Amino acid sequence: MTTPAPVRGRPLASDQDSREKLLDTATLLFSSQGIAVTTVAAVARQAGVTAAMVHYYFKNRDQLIEAVVDERVSLFIRSIWEPINGDQPPEQMIMGIVDRMISTTEKMPWMPALWVREVLSDGGQLRERMVRRVPLAKLMLFADNIARSQQAGQLNPQLQPDLIFVSVIGLTMLPLAMARTLKDRPSLPIAHKLALMDKALLARHIKALLLHGLAMPGATLSDD
Amino acid sequence: MTTPAPVRGRPLASDQDSREKLLDTATLLFSSQGIAVTTVAAVARQAGVTAAMVHYYFKNRDQLIEAVVDERVSLFIRSIWEPINGDQPPEQMIMGIVDRMISTTEKMPWMPALWVREVLSDGGQLRERMVRRVPLAKLMLFADNIARSQQAGQLNPQLQPDLIFVSVIGLTMLPLAMARTLKDRPSLPIAHKLALMDKALLARHIKALLLHGLAMPGATLSDD
Repeated sequence: MTTPAPVRGRPLASDQDSREKLLDTATLLFSSQGIAVTTVAAVARQAGVTAAMVHYYFKNRDQLIEAVVDERVSLFIRSIWEPINGDQPPEQMIMGIVDRMISTTEKMPWMPALWVREVLSDGGQLRERMVRRVPLAKLMLFADNIARSQQAGQLNPQLQPDLIFVSVIGLTMLPLAMARTLKDRPSLPIAHKLALMDKALLARHIKALLLHGLAMPGATLSDD
Repeated sequence: MTTPAPVRGRPLASDQDSREKLLDTATLLFSSQGIAVTTVAAVARQAGVTAAMVHYYFKNRDQLIEAVVDERVSLFIRSIWEPINGDQPPEQMIMGIVDRMISTTEKMPWMPALWVREVLSDGGQLRERMVRRVPLAKLMLFADNIARSQQAGQLNPQLQPDLIFVSVIGLTMLPLAMARTLKDRPSLPIAHKLALMDKALLARHIKALLLHGLAMPGATLSDD
């Protein structure tokens, strides 16, 4: 690719860049210190622009938050759920979610902390906004797929289909969130492990647990 | 036991009651709205006493927080870890932790939200205080027990011994935290399920996943 020559209309592209930079700055601040304490002035200061500039792109603080959800957080949700069609074998469907949660977090490292603080916490400011964006149809495909496989005698019948996605979040997002928040505590053995952990090792552990639990993954003969 | 007759020194008992009530009030406020925004005055107001009374029992805000950790949060940690001695079969040791996390949360319903907000979140005010109280010796007994069973060919060798406790926390504390925080969202199917869920059903799901994962829990023949 050659560098494009300066042309008229270039200010539009740079406008877009400034807007993207403000969104990135706001997302990082929301994740690291919380939405409640992050003012428009703080976002502007961090991005090296005036507060008026932030208002120019996002009108007000609420629209800035909406834009962070629509143009950042939603990308995370979409990347997790988009490939789910309900037809995959359930193990493959679930392993795919684990892989995508881990790989998408590599690209969006602010996500686990933002999720803990603003979605999971009481009074989190993204809870309502996230709830409105939950892909309910995909969630139902997911649970139906699992329930069907259980009825066919192919999947552990003691699992609750509706709880499996919650379990996958717990197994995956929690260590990712802990890895970030514990990285300043190298004295704790587990913190060290989590912070420095090869993500491939984490994925292997989570998948092994999801596939066979504590049991030896040897040849399995069903009782019936 | 007979009811003790009123005796001199009774004011001491009542003193103890007031102190306990203040601790309960502070714990609930810390859990529901966060430590950062909970002033001594707010605790006093909620408990129906003067701020001077809070200072009488706890000297300052920092000592109030320390007392909440020592006399409330530590009870939770202790109830989870105390029975661990490293000699139980690992499945039994892990199932016991799940049972105790769920049953202790019934008695201390403020714990999951407090944990999410003040331990797991970046900048959580209990993180350092909790880290100092992690029962490292028990954690090592736990991980050693698992590693031994793996070497003996009795436990899934692909699991990371150090990560299993993190997995148990994720599988157990996360739905407990979500059940509390989602209980005002009955329109979301999963929220409804989690909020109204019979804790026995949740325990069954978590244990089934930990014991066998997605695999059918039929007779298992190891490959070797």
